[in-house]
Amino acid sequence: MGRRKEDLDESKRSSGIQPVEEGRRSFLKGSLMLAGAAAAGGSAGLASVAQAGSLAIPESNKSMGREIEPKAYGMPSKYEAHVTRNRTDVFVNKQHWSDWSMTPLQHQKGIITPNGLFYERHHAGTPDINPEQHTLVVHGMVKQPLKFSMDDLMRYPSMSKFYFMECSGNGLTDWKTVKSTTVQQTHGLLGCAQWTGVPLSWLLDEAGLADGAKWVLLEGADGSAHLRSIPIEKCMDDVMIVWGMNGEMLRPENGYPLRAFIPGWEGNVCVKWLRRIKVGDKPWNARSETARYTDPMPEGKWRQFSFVMECKSVITSPSGGMKIPGPGRVEIEGFAWSGNGTIKAVDVTFDGGKTWREAKLEDPVLDKCLTRFRYSWDWDGGPAKIASRAVDSTGYVQPTVADIDKVRAITGFVQHHNGVFPWSVSSSGEVANAIA
Amino acid sequence: MGRRKEDLDESKRSSGIQPVEEGRRSFLKGSLMLAGAAAAGGSAGLASVAQAGSLAIPESNKSMGREIEPKAYGMPSKYEAHVTRNRTDVFVNKQHWSDWSMTPLQHQKGIITPNGLFYERHHAGTPDINPEQHTLVVHGMVKQPLKFSMDDLMRYPSMSKFYFMECSGNGLTDWKTVKSTTVQQTHGLLGCAQWTGVPLSWLLDEAGLADGAKWVLLEGADGSAHLRSIPIEKCMDDVMIVWGMNGEMLRPENGYPLRAFIPGWEGNVCVKWLRRIKVGDKPWNARSETARYTDPMPEGKWRQFSFVMECKSVITSPSGGMKIPGPGRVEIEGFAWSGNGTIKAVDVTFDGGKTWREAKLEDPVLDKCLTRFRYSWDWDGGPAKIASRAVDSTGYVQPTVADIDKVRAITGFVQHHNGVFPWSVSSSGEVANAIA
Repeated sequence: MGRRKEDLDESKRSSGIQPVEEGRRSFLKGSLMLAGAAAAGGSAGLASVAQAGSLAIPESNKSMGREIEPKAYGMPSKYEAHVTRNRTDVFVNKQHWSDWSMTPLQHQKGIITPNGLFYERHHAGTPDINPEQHTLVVHGMVKQPLKFSMDDLMRYPSMSKFYFMECSGNGLTDWKTVKSTTVQQTHGLLGCAQWTGVPLSWLLDEAGLADGAKWVLLEGADGSAHLRSIPIEKCMDDVMIVWGMNGEMLRPENGYPLRAFIPGWEGNVCVKWLRRIKVGDKPWNARSETARYTDPMPEGKWRQFSFVMECKSVITSPSGGMKIPGPGRVEIEGFAWSGNGTIKAVDVTFDGGKTWREAKLEDPVLDKCLTRFRYSWDWDGGPAKIASRAVDSTGYVQPTVADIDKVRAITGFVQHHNGVFPWSVSSSGEVANAIA
Repeated sequence: MGRRKEDLDESKRSSGIQPVEEGRRSFLKGSLMLAGAAAAGGSAGLASVAQAGSLAIPESNKSMGREIEPKAYGMPSKYEAHVTRNRTDVFVNKQHWSDWSMTPLQHQKGIITPNGLFYERHHAGTPDINPEQHTLVVHGMVKQPLKFSMDDLMRYPSMSKFYFMECSGNGLTDWKTVKSTTVQQTHGLLGCAQWTGVPLSWLLDEAGLADGAKWVLLEGADGSAHLRSIPIEKCMDDVMIVWGMNGEMLRPENGYPLRAFIPGWEGNVCVKWLRRIKVGDKPWNARSETARYTDPMPEGKWRQFSFVMECKSVITSPSGGMKIPGPGRVEIEGFAWSGNGTIKAVDVTFDGGKTWREAKLEDPVLDKCLTRFRYSWDWDGGPAKIASRAVDSTGYVQPTVADIDKVRAITGFVQHHNGVFPWSVSSSGEVANAIA
């Protein structure tokens, strides 16, 4: 069993779990001990427990449960009905075609975002597309225009990769003053899945790039005909055309039956309901890359084509709206991710950034994927300001909002907010958004 | 962009994807080329396509889609309603409390089994358990009996691990003559998820093992009070007590709110709706480890405590019920897994086991986890018998049914079927269960 033992030890190390003496004892209050239970082994122990009423047989042991149905797609427990993806709580929007919903990151276990909870963002609602009628055309500066049915595409050898996806607008309401209440609202335009499809480079190879091909247009089959221009280098590198997400076909709101996936880049370039790929020699400068998805810079200029979602992290527990029951050990948990590579380290602060401690990362740590971090904090019961700061494999360190303010113009609802994000902890244990 | 390029090359290698010349061209029939399209670049290409009617604007581009709801838990597309977990098609069962449903492996993308499609197996139906009232007691040969609420447990530092889970009865209807029709029915008591919880060793450390502690009893809160005895060595090694599955709380039918997870071992020891852990000095020899979950051996003896799910694999595409459209390139895909470690290699045969070729494995290849393999087969259009054979990190080679027959008694519905599993391909391309 030597090998398995090592595996477990490895898990403990990599997940940042503390040895018993350092980290665990304090999680167990005296109240957990069974009243009247003798410190004895064997049946004596059982007798003590039974006397204390602790082994009373629950009702569920006394009856038959729900039968198995002939065919079913299962759903969460009714006791988890509070775990949903939610629309923004900051704006009042009178129609919800161009809108977004957010992932409940405070409830997420591990690195996989369930498809039913994965955030949505679209400009004209979710179209109803029959995959048997859906086609993808590759045309423009190619030697041979091509048209694919879903069957044609799915006959290719597929590949599956774990990647995060983040909307460029994630955090846009919480730069300086506008305050969302929970981490679902501050950071929930974020999710992580295993995506299945084919490299775009295969389709472009198949069509044959004409001389001078430099940019690729992706267009969706939705009411907004959403489109984006992507440099050919990225398309020939790691862009995927995907139909699968976390083991099944894409959900309608996430692009069913076909979307682009552009690893590490902002969500809006991963065009959903993809119906057309056109090759050209320059960007198309569509509305979604001029009036939208651009960033204000100092002196009134605007930055275009800021594709990469840079290194970022956030503490998800404890986070806004939670309450720490009392002083003592508090398990800090959160996510870190980078569109430029893997997460190398995460630091956490409890004094608003004066001092930092290194958190532990949980395996697997994958390229352009959510990575979990944790730190066991001994809270003294006083007011605190907690935050995390990630470093990626390029050496890039997640900046503060003040750092970003020096090089960009933070006015209004600005995209690409990857600043360090603080939560305040009051002396009564209440946790709240602490953006100054 | 050098690093990213390497990442993609790595993906291609590890997923077994062939270079263009070797594997891809034949996927694209001439029919994919757009009728009348000129081999030209720029707008000429677009014009050609448009003339051919291929860029007709779909209806979904002309209207608004579904609006975003305030709070929602999303569901698959209505066009995917045929993808469900299904009860067995072999037995006629008049009640469905003690029953099972099976994962549609032929539809699974990547290695994650969606929670809504994850197979079920229980003896008295799915109980309805309120997590606020659920408790876990640790007692027996311990120094201090303990009782945990769900909140107590979830305050521990958690860990998340990707593992497969397989019912010991997976394949039990298809040893020699009884034939299921699809891979869902032959191998669908199988799934893979990221599981979140705490090591059982922590709870046992906390309670303190008394001298002589050798076995641990796990008992569920369901109508059958399902229970199993587990050796203390495994409990102190890698056993987890879990509440999370693929990013969210366990589904009711998979043990909500708490179950045991015993990596690499048969599903039935991963006791669901876990309410009691008792430590003792010998196994309890419960009904589920004497009358059930034992294996017939030669000379009429029965083997008890055959916990490990040994190395196994199956081709999921093409598989039973599918039809290959015609001679030429056929992408072979499947899963391999081992309860004893990682998958080291998978071979595939097209002539019923006379000759074997090495398939490619897709990253990530994780310990006790589903691993995807693939092979690009050039089918000549003649009758064929296809199968896969996995090798794990201990060097163990997946046996044939004939191999297993030499050391065990295959009579009736025998558990622990990890034999090589063949599909026949007829000259018309029909794929069927080929168990002789």
